Amino acid sequence: MAGTTPAVVPARPTPCPLRSAVPSTLLSRRDLDFLLHEWLRVAELVERPRYAEHSRETFDDALDLAEQVATERFAPHNRAADLAEPTFDGERVRLIPQVRAALDSFAETGLLAAAMDATVGGLQLPHTVAAACFTWFQAANVATSAYPFLTLGNANLLLAHGSAEQVDTYVRPMMEGRFFGTMCLSEPHAGSSLADITTRAEEQPDGTYRLFGTKMWISGGDHELAENIVHLVLARIPGGPPGVKGISLFIVPKVLVGPDGSLGDRNDVVLAGLNHKMGFRGTTNALLTFGDGRHTPGGSAGAVGHLVGAPHQGLAQMFHMMNEARIGVGAGATALGYTGYLKSLAYARERPQGRPVGAKDPATAQVAIIEHPDVRRMLLAQKSYVEGALALVLYCARLLDEQRTAPAAADRERAHLLLDVLTPITKSWPSQWCLAANDLAIQVLGGAGYTRDHDVEQHYRDNRLNPIHEGTHGIQALDLLGRKVTMQGGAGLAVLTETIGATIARARQAGGAAADLAGRLADAVDRVGAVTRRLWADGDPVLALANASAYLEAVGHVAIAWMWLEQVLALPPEGGGDAFHAGKRQAARYFFTVELPRTGPQFDLLASRDRTTLDMRPDWF
Amino acid sequence: MAGTTPAVVPARPTPCPLRSAVPSTLLSRRDLDFLLHEWLRVAELVERPRYAEHSRETFDDALDLAEQVATERFAPHNRAADLAEPTFDGERVRLIPQVRAALDSFAETGLLAAAMDATVGGLQLPHTVAAACFTWFQAANVATSAYPFLTLGNANLLLAHGSAEQVDTYVRPMMEGRFFGTMCLSEPHAGSSLADITTRAEEQPDGTYRLFGTKMWISGGDHELAENIVHLVLARIPGGPPGVKGISLFIVPKVLVGPDGSLGDRNDVVLAGLNHKMGFRGTTNALLTFGDGRHTPGGSAGAVGHLVGAPHQGLAQMFHMMNEARIGVGAGATALGYTGYLKSLAYARERPQGRPVGAKDPATAQVAIIEHPDVRRMLLAQKSYVEGALALVLYCARLLDEQRTAPAAADRERAHLLLDVLTPITKSWPSQWCLAANDLAIQVLGGAGYTRDHDVEQHYRDNRLNPIHEGTHGIQALDLLGRKVTMQGGAGLAVLTETIGATIARARQAGGAAADLAGRLADAVDRVGAVTRRLWADGDPVLALANASAYLEAVGHVAIAWMWLEQVLALPPEGGGDAFHAGKRQAARYFFTVELPRTGPQFDLLASRDRTTLDMRPDWF
Repeated sequence: MAGTTPAVVPARPTPCPLRSAVPSTLLSRRDLDFLLHEWLRVAELVERPRYAEHSRETFDDALDLAEQVATERFAPHNRAADLAEPTFDGERVRLIPQVRAALDSFAETGLLAAAMDATVGGLQLPHTVAAACFTWFQAANVATSAYPFLTLGNANLLLAHGSAEQVDTYVRPMMEGRFFGTMCLSEPHAGSSLADITTRAEEQPDGTYRLFGTKMWISGGDHELAENIVHLVLARIPGGPPGVKGISLFIVPKVLVGPDGSLGDRNDVVLAGLNHKMGFRGTTNALLTFGDGRHTPGGSAGAVGHLVGAPHQGLAQMFHMMNEARIGVGAGATALGYTGYLKSLAYARERPQGRPVGAKDPATAQVAIIEHPDVRRMLLAQKSYVEGALALVLYCARLLDEQRTAPAAADRERAHLLLDVLTPITKSWPSQWCLAANDLAIQVLGGAGYTRDHDVEQHYRDNRLNPIHEGTHGIQALDLLGRKVTMQGGAGLAVLTETIGATIARARQAGGAAADLAGRLADAVDRVGAVTRRLWADGDPVLALANASAYLEAVGHVAIAWMWLEQVLALPPEGGGDAFHAGKRQAARYFFTVELPRTGPQFDLLASRDRTTLDMRPDWF
Repeated sequence: MAGTTPAVVPARPTPCPLRSAVPSTLLSRRDLDFLLHEWLRVAELVERPRYAEHSRETFDDALDLAEQVATERFAPHNRAADLAEPTFDGERVRLIPQVRAALDSFAETGLLAAAMDATVGGLQLPHTVAAACFTWFQAANVATSAYPFLTLGNANLLLAHGSAEQVDTYVRPMMEGRFFGTMCLSEPHAGSSLADITTRAEEQPDGTYRLFGTKMWISGGDHELAENIVHLVLARIPGGPPGVKGISLFIVPKVLVGPDGSLGDRNDVVLAGLNHKMGFRGTTNALLTFGDGRHTPGGSAGAVGHLVGAPHQGLAQMFHMMNEARIGVGAGATALGYTGYLKSLAYARERPQGRPVGAKDPATAQVAIIEHPDVRRMLLAQKSYVEGALALVLYCARLLDEQRTAPAAADRERAHLLLDVLTPITKSWPSQWCLAANDLAIQVLGGAGYTRDHDVEQHYRDNRLNPIHEGTHGIQALDLLGRKVTMQGGAGLAVLTETIGATIARARQAGGAAADLAGRLADAVDRVGAVTRRLWADGDPVLALANASAYLEAVGHVAIAWMWLEQVLALPPEGGGDAFHAGKRQAARYFFTVELPRTGPQFDLLASRDRTTLDMRPDWF
């Protein structure tokens, strides 16, 4: 890693916001504290050298700061950015000014580099704390937070694969908030199928490249929010192998950067158009043309690009960013689900309507709708989804801390493997079920929830993107069943079931309700193992993968049940604790009673190796 | 019923549109013909006196006309009306002009009165055919079709409960397309809880009433699309009983109508504001103030209203309209699901992306995405939902024909009872699952489906209203489990299970695949019976209704499985038929294999009389 500054951790002093008497409707700090401290015990990480300068207090300060800036600078323009989506007049992209103001405030917090090395200006916070911090911004305004989200993924990729010069030229300005980043993978004819991209990169005598091609669905692809945009672009060097093996990765800045960091000519990256989306409207989404001749930097054709690492390694490099982005998508979906849950909860506590079953005297006052069991069902379902998903997201971040800082190499490797297996689940489960939570949030509000007077309808529209981008639901299913659980001769599946098994063993020892839940989870985990072996019994991938989506969904539910059992084990002994702890117990009970049994028919379908969709012929539709 | 014109059925000659070589992406005429003729045998209805002037040809002409006008006049402005939603400048409501043009075309077809008596200018078509016709308009443009939808419900209510004079004054102009109608139930503090409405109606010496109050969520509540708007308003006559027993129904026209039908003064009905919705944007949705003094018709305060029928019968009368509206909501949800399915199917046939599992050579051409099993899964799921829902909607319409025209009184009564039981299911199941179909349609299109360049995102937003209006999902659940299945000493449940039992018996006799499906359906029906009895075993409504939503959803799935078995029985013998018939078989197989088993855990939950949501205390959230 480049950088020569001393490893002093700049644990910046931050103003502690006055905690409002009214609980936030973005996230629950109580829940975050419970997950981070009572469950994941992040304060213990300060015993590791990397985090030695930190303490529970610096973690709390970072979370306070995230909550404050998210609440004061991101949340207020969430609706405004939806109503006034970005426009393009043929020359410039215009966004409402609050977006830039929020991003400037965000840059000032230093949280973009929360988990990065002090050597590159980072705060060197544990990933778990950094992830929790970022969730506040996603809950407050998922569209505005997409700009730093993409920039961070871009920077992390360059830190891993770029040269020292590339880090100095591009990463440092990104960390300062002066440059933003994107990832440019898809093309109009190649979305999920990256093997078919055709953008080409021609090497120049000076070692740079000139790129020609068109990229589609580029989030943050153009705007005036920063001095420059650093595009990371997948392209082919002519003469390379076909398919994914011939893909290389290039840095293509919107504006050329001189050796001294000064901005030079406009590169030949041209915005061909903005997409108009159902939600996530505050994030520009662009069709970009590289090298169409509109600009001729240095007098010659093509967009100037700089190869990252060796040729033909582009896809593997991009997956560094992609895996991080996938977990980030899960986190964003979770944040949207969580804030929708809290808003519908606040509404349900306030809104009087109707009377309890059996108490229909119209002369009595109406009750708050939270008194109706069906409304509590909708709230409890949301709670079980969003708190379960948040646990999974933070657990993955904790695995990243283990992968990078656990003292024992075996622990690091084990964390790495488990994180690989959990990535498609952590991307897809919150994308599906926290969207379902947003659907329930609308339903709790009724007609009001369907209007733009309340946030929940926007959360629902925003969240609908998440099962699509960074690899669709179906792609995640193929990844989990076709690659992750089978990798290393089944080690992927083994590490998952063994880790869950350890939780089950602890729960059995704890006895009581936890032991009861453990028995049910053990049955489900047994089915995961049996079904996986059955599917791959004769090695026919067509048949094995025919119902991969059902597999992804069933294993996802098992993983969330596991997260609930983990949370139950972090609670005070039964009979102790307060209302918060009682709510956790009840949400766990709900998930095990209502949700986990959904997997039964899914496992049955998989175990039967059902051919219904395989046998359906296209001409029969 | 009023009217003295002879009962000649004006089966109007209609131009037969040139059938395009490209199949419609609104609905499948082939499927409609299958359902109407091969399954429901509507042509046999012409043997009944009411339909004696009709024939298969007049039915076909009506369907042709509906398809033509829906395609040419409703579909083209579906997106435009979404993008340019109605505005209110404080004086007038403005809509894009295509809405009025479409509604004028609709009025010219005569289809508004498709099922009405010839004596009031109707075409006297069977309800089944009329319902199928209207589905075309909902598929083409659900927001524009809401205006005639509400007008029709209003007119039918007045035909059932209004005086001859009221029919002449208000219904006839509605049938001619000159007046539109609304239903005004909710108030800002009383949405689902109609017992709490406070709008009051004071009787005047001349027998009219003056109304004072505020009504919320009034679809079509104000606009300039017609000469007049006929509001049907629930209000209280002072001195009446409290709660729902003291609600009366009033006609409150926007513009007063003289005895000769001439339009007079503006009534004191004032638009206080329009709601801004996530979808269904082309339909105005209003907050209306009655009697706020802005206008003083006849020089005195209050909005002039005319009592419909006797005092204090308002809720029962309104349910006449409401039951019809609930089935219409299910039909609209189905139509949105259906068109989304067809559009995603067309996309999947055209869009090349990726290669089959095990054929990854990038030198080969990409295949159409319909070749991927997971895409076929998403299409097959949609097909099973939307065709199953359409079958249920048309089956209910057929029951209405039986209820009104079956020769034997026992058959009429039986149809009435079964329709009562099926109404909450027909409202809610398509609202839930055809919305799920729209979600899958977006997913088939991927990123493209999330943009406003394609219709599917709008269908998803439009369809999200359906689980809310005309009684929420939770209200339907209480209606089904708390009232419908228990009514008349359990006769509601009995008529449902016996009717399904008759289908099962036929399927067993047919043998083969049908008999296999019959066995699985029989098991599910047995569970419906056992669970219902268990829930009501000790008559505690709080415990019985604690999981009413799960009951509604499980019984809904059983009902749709039944609809699929019915369709299978209407197919040519196994081994015969064409691709259409093979597709029907496969969709039935899908529904029974993937969908029906979802009910197992739901029935288990219900049978255990689970208290999880009941036990959840509001302060634990």
